[in-house]
Amino acid sequence: MSNAGHDVIEVIHTKRDGGELSDSQIDWVIAAYTDGRVADEQMAALNMAILLRGMNRREIAHWTAAMIASGERMSFDALSRPTADKHSTGGVGDKITLPLAPLVAACGVAVPQLSGRGLGHTGGTLDKLEAIPGWRASISNEEMFAQLESVGAVICAAGAGLAPADKKLYALRDVTGTVESIPLIASSIMSKKIAEGTGALVLDVKVGSGAFMKNLDDARELARTMVDLGLDAGVHTVALLTDMATPLGLTAGNALEVAESVEVLAGGGPADVVELTVALAREMLLGAGVRDLDPADVLASGRAMDAWNAMIAAQGGDPSAALPVAREQHVVTAPSSGVLTRLDALSVGLAAWRLGAGRERKEDPVQLGAGVVWHARPGDPVRAGEPLFTLHTDTPERFDRALAALEGGWDVAPEGTSYEPSPLILDRIS
Amino acid sequence: MSNAGHDVIEVIHTKRDGGELSDSQIDWVIAAYTDGRVADEQMAALNMAILLRGMNRREIAHWTAAMIASGERMSFDALSRPTADKHSTGGVGDKITLPLAPLVAACGVAVPQLSGRGLGHTGGTLDKLEAIPGWRASISNEEMFAQLESVGAVICAAGAGLAPADKKLYALRDVTGTVESIPLIASSIMSKKIAEGTGALVLDVKVGSGAFMKNLDDARELARTMVDLGLDAGVHTVALLTDMATPLGLTAGNALEVAESVEVLAGGGPADVVELTVALAREMLLGAGVRDLDPADVLASGRAMDAWNAMIAAQGGDPSAALPVAREQHVVTAPSSGVLTRLDALSVGLAAWRLGAGRERKEDPVQLGAGVVWHARPGDPVRAGEPLFTLHTDTPERFDRALAALEGGWDVAPEGTSYEPSPLILDRIS
Repeated sequence: MSNAGHDVIEVIHTKRDGGELSDSQIDWVIAAYTDGRVADEQMAALNMAILLRGMNRREIAHWTAAMIASGERMSFDALSRPTADKHSTGGVGDKITLPLAPLVAACGVAVPQLSGRGLGHTGGTLDKLEAIPGWRASISNEEMFAQLESVGAVICAAGAGLAPADKKLYALRDVTGTVESIPLIASSIMSKKIAEGTGALVLDVKVGSGAFMKNLDDARELARTMVDLGLDAGVHTVALLTDMATPLGLTAGNALEVAESVEVLAGGGPADVVELTVALAREMLLGAGVRDLDPADVLASGRAMDAWNAMIAAQGGDPSAALPVAREQHVVTAPSSGVLTRLDALSVGLAAWRLGAGRERKEDPVQLGAGVVWHARPGDPVRAGEPLFTLHTDTPERFDRALAALEGGWDVAPEGTSYEPSPLILDRIS
Repeated sequence: MSNAGHDVIEVIHTKRDGGELSDSQIDWVIAAYTDGRVADEQMAALNMAILLRGMNRREIAHWTAAMIASGERMSFDALSRPTADKHSTGGVGDKITLPLAPLVAACGVAVPQLSGRGLGHTGGTLDKLEAIPGWRASISNEEMFAQLESVGAVICAAGAGLAPADKKLYALRDVTGTVESIPLIASSIMSKKIAEGTGALVLDVKVGSGAFMKNLDDARELARTMVDLGLDAGVHTVALLTDMATPLGLTAGNALEVAESVEVLAGGGPADVVELTVALAREMLLGAGVRDLDPADVLASGRAMDAWNAMIAAQGGDPSAALPVAREQHVVTAPSSGVLTRLDALSVGLAAWRLGAGRERKEDPVQLGAGVVWHARPGDPVRAGEPLFTLHTDTPERFDRALAALEGGWDVAPEGTSYEPSPLILDRIS
């Protein structure tokens, strides 16, 4: 269990006792974990020591570099257009990638989005797109390049060759209570994005009950860490901190969110989804050096919808096919008339998850039609007896636990109560 | 991975975030780890969190109780004599158990010593006794009882049924850099000793370079923690803190230490080995309620040697057989005449280990004849050109690394330099 002068106990002890890991220790331990010389239990102990002791900027940068070096590194230099990608740290109702990728592509910037699946109460982009009949997430690198050249946008599963150390490490952290570490989160996200080879990157760092980061300070530290990692690696990187105390739009659930995204591409949809999509598109265009186009105009022109149709069709999907609908619905009505003053993202996310929209274990299937529709957003009027939520599932025995998750997750104040809207975009870090 | 209202992530998060584990969380996680529902990597993360966050007295007591409950619990109530046991936290040249057990037996107190094998630079009692031709470490519980009744002393391997959670946990900590935690060390030692069912227990907590605890404060905390655990479980427990800056006696190595122990039983042997053996015997007799015998008299009477011969023979050993001798020797001579003022226990322990007296991995064999003999103890005169150390091994290619370990591990001062001997027994905690 030792080579290059290192052994795993020495590396664990260094961090456990509050020291800094050397570049050489980091290179060794990531390589040795990837090829199995360092066992899961040893890496789990090291992860916990990192979570509790932290890593400095050099350690995080080198940890990220070592994870990139564990696999292949892609390059889009041969493309005829610049590239830009977006990463969200995950939220409830966060379907932004779906309208965003075709919108940016319609502006002439290629979007190579390597996405993941959902785990826990935040949904996964691939799960959402798989609600579209025929669409497939797995394509070859050659297909990806061809599609980026022809359509300008690809949303697909990351191949096994990209940062394999991160894949192994992420699965380990997930089962060992070591997810919530800013150095480990930042290096995990950025190793994949840097290895992917995008020229520009916009990070959507969510803050609030429905997000990983519950408060602004933590979110800012995560954003700063990731932006530094991107810039150090030569990727034009900015981060927006955005609200996730309230879920995005009016839907959480795979097919439900696809339908809402298509509304946005058609020029409608909830105002917050449109606002965030356009704001992120602006950042991606800036990062890619495109300064003469307003994505709001492009969205209004219908060209983003054309790009969507082409993007879905290129991966075997039928953009005009009917989307799956859950077999059962349950409506929650407003108990009194007034104003919705609070809608908690975590409650909605848990409800959607419990209805079958998400998975408990990696190997679980998701219900494509399951989820939650809310009929008002904070600030909207509600009327006694009218629908406030519609719950969708194929398995009605799930309604009870979903309703329990929603309980206490929203407030209706008497009519005439004034409501001060809170901003969607909280900060920008570059 | 959940039952009784717990899951492993929740338990890990509790400790990771600085909280106290509830009795029910501890019961659950120890039982679930023992039967495989909690995986090694999950327990490794929890161990690291415990090491860095600590456990309070209630948590340590319950952790220990849960490990005891994972297996069988022995009882010696049916024996015609009281029982007392000794545990050493491990040192270099620490062969004390060998003369101590028969000495205490000769005083009428039964000694049920369930011992371990060596790992790293501190030797294991079973490895030492296996240098005696024919002796076997594994005996049944029935044989053990019969031998305690007839001879009064048993030194044998702990059966697999005793605190199996601790066995699994210890092996895990050993490979995950989580050994050095006072709560985990204390609960590991005491779970075995309490489950073993001894009526009285004397702890020899070593302090110094050759010991696990390098300073008096840590050793005192470990001793206090273990004494509390013992008393809480109804075992009459005291601890002596003893010096391990200097190795014990004049030998480190399996057969070499057996020979030295036999010298002590014959009324000779190094003064420090005799002192510590008698001091520990006194504590064991006190703990067992025997107040009318001085173990120094019993040692001088030859009755301890009789008990030794009977104890070895009862486990198949031939106490009069010649002990194994290493094939090769290498002598280190004193470079100048003067006084030996320092002999570092860690250096000697590493040298003996590298000569083959210890093992690197649990499955490695040990060389029964390998080890180090030092011909002077601090305070003794040495003469230029005369032997200071004799190194023994079957594999002479090991001499170089053993000599490197000894380098800088001793000092000779000019003749006439005064030497202030330091006490062997540093403190007593009861």
